[in-house]
Amino acid sequence: MTSNQQVVMRQRPHGKPSAADFDLVERPTPAPGPGEVLVETAWLSLDPYMRGRMAAGPSYASPLEPGDVITGEVVGRVSQSCVPDIPAGSFVRAPSGWQSHAVHAASAVHVVDPGKAPLSAYLGVLGMPGLTAYAGLHELGRPKASETLVVAAATGPVGSLVGQLAKRLGVRTVGIAGGADKVEMLAETFGFDVALDHRSANFDKALRAACPGGVDVYVELVGGHVFDAVLPLLNVHARIPVIGTVAHYNATESAPGPDRMPMLMRQILVKRLAVEGLIVWDFEHLRPRFVDEMAALIRVGAIRYVEDVTEGLAAAPEAFIGLLEGANRGKALVRVAEP
Amino acid sequence: MTSNQQVVMRQRPHGKPSAADFDLVERPTPAPGPGEVLVETAWLSLDPYMRGRMAAGPSYASPLEPGDVITGEVVGRVSQSCVPDIPAGSFVRAPSGWQSHAVHAASAVHVVDPGKAPLSAYLGVLGMPGLTAYAGLHELGRPKASETLVVAAATGPVGSLVGQLAKRLGVRTVGIAGGADKVEMLAETFGFDVALDHRSANFDKALRAACPGGVDVYVELVGGHVFDAVLPLLNVHARIPVIGTVAHYNATESAPGPDRMPMLMRQILVKRLAVEGLIVWDFEHLRPRFVDEMAALIRVGAIRYVEDVTEGLAAAPEAFIGLLEGANRGKALVRVAEP
Repeated sequence: MTSNQQVVMRQRPHGKPSAADFDLVERPTPAPGPGEVLVETAWLSLDPYMRGRMAAGPSYASPLEPGDVITGEVVGRVSQSCVPDIPAGSFVRAPSGWQSHAVHAASAVHVVDPGKAPLSAYLGVLGMPGLTAYAGLHELGRPKASETLVVAAATGPVGSLVGQLAKRLGVRTVGIAGGADKVEMLAETFGFDVALDHRSANFDKALRAACPGGVDVYVELVGGHVFDAVLPLLNVHARIPVIGTVAHYNATESAPGPDRMPMLMRQILVKRLAVEGLIVWDFEHLRPRFVDEMAALIRVGAIRYVEDVTEGLAAAPEAFIGLLEGANRGKALVRVAEP
Repeated sequence: MTSNQQVVMRQRPHGKPSAADFDLVERPTPAPGPGEVLVETAWLSLDPYMRGRMAAGPSYASPLEPGDVITGEVVGRVSQSCVPDIPAGSFVRAPSGWQSHAVHAASAVHVVDPGKAPLSAYLGVLGMPGLTAYAGLHELGRPKASETLVVAAATGPVGSLVGQLAKRLGVRTVGIAGGADKVEMLAETFGFDVALDHRSANFDKALRAACPGGVDVYVELVGGHVFDAVLPLLNVHARIPVIGTVAHYNATESAPGPDRMPMLMRQILVKRLAVEGLIVWDFEHLRPRFVDEMAALIRVGAIRYVEDVTEGLAAAPEAFIGLLEGANRGKALVRVAEP
């Protein structure tokens, strides 16, 4: 009998998480009951939103408590099944969290087709980050040809897909990332029209120069000084899908003044900005269309994606801490086992 | 030959405007050329947005310069016409500003029908504030029956119409105003389900109690501590049409910290708020439908409106200063002359 490896939250992180906030434990592998399947994790997705689940405050989902397995999505193989429609050997996407095995009700898992795309892609470009990018761009951003779109964290799985899909619509794309090697990826791998380094001293000036006609769509993934630099460049009727504010996820106290909230509301008014929050689960209805469109584009090489793979569940905490600091190159994944 | 009375901006106000910032001057009455009409002002509309035009900073329209006639919309009678379609004696709505006479190109004026509604109504419930309320509610707020809508400045021409139109859709309406007499108007004249005084010591608590199911639509007209009180009560997928932030119009410096802009962006994300600015001129295409619907409702007494009339152009500055402090009861108008 194999045991179940789990990464649990030992204690709630204060500010930036550290290795001491996590524990690797072994538990007995559970067995599926009627209507359930046992899923063996092949790949675990690491995503910035997980930092929010570790915080105590109210968010869009209940917070983790000490001892809980960290939240997360996986793809894996069904090794035991009490569900006729999902026989053992099926491949599924499942909300198992950071563990090697998990039992799920049939309704909680989604069968995926490894013949259509590599299994890991269902956690990235074909999965939650991909659908986030797709919905954020098409439903909220709604760019028109020759408009200018700006996105930061643009080598990440959401930002890189936003940029590539926008480019296919004839949009002028400005990608922002941190560090010379990421900036190189922006232009060479993902085809952004302009690639900028937000860590460079003259970033604000470079962004202004890169957007001579202003900014029509700003896909907000990071917040912080990137948002500050974009704000004065926004055009009338600009759209701002708010998908993440990762620059603030480790913040332990309020930012110093002045209070710019009234200024932001005034900008929203005078420029008739549309600022709207997006969480991917509101767009589940788009998933079938999204997967079909995207898998076809991937097959012909029209969409590229990059994966940053960490080996073994034990290394997940360190990879996650790096993700929050922007250390990853592409979609952060943990290879937990061969499927 | 009658002379043209004008109120001009003597100097740019710093903070709260004072009488010394305005001058009443007499100029020769201009004569219309080909394709133009001379309009004699009957009623001048006073609106909070005018404070923005007096400021130097960039806004959605060019700022006034010292010596300029203050911006404003009027209704009046065409006394001389070089436009066959708009003969002398016609009644029009026109962007004359704070003056008794003005020449306009035919394209700048809109003929109004005093048989359908009183002339002054075309500056309020049937005019710019009315269309603002109509577009803000139907296009951006989109409330569903039994949802809860909150609006402040709710005895004003925008807020009072938002409340009445929402009520007709089966929405639960919470109106906010400053002072006991205005709060009485909210319930008795405009039929809000709950009427609250934002000046009362326990306002935050009263608002929370008034919204046990949270807030689905908040029509932003004021900002300041009313917005602060509404923010934690917003439901997932709440909509916030941003129409005005009058609490900040006289501000001369940034608000003290902490900086709540990142907090607001985080709230927009986790609650998937839709925050969108509205300026009425983007909704001109709705005006014909709006005027027809509204005039019919007014005729049968289904929509009520209140006018706060100041006599004579010379008194306009004082009335405008009062408007910014919430001294008016209903739509602020100046009766410049009998039509």
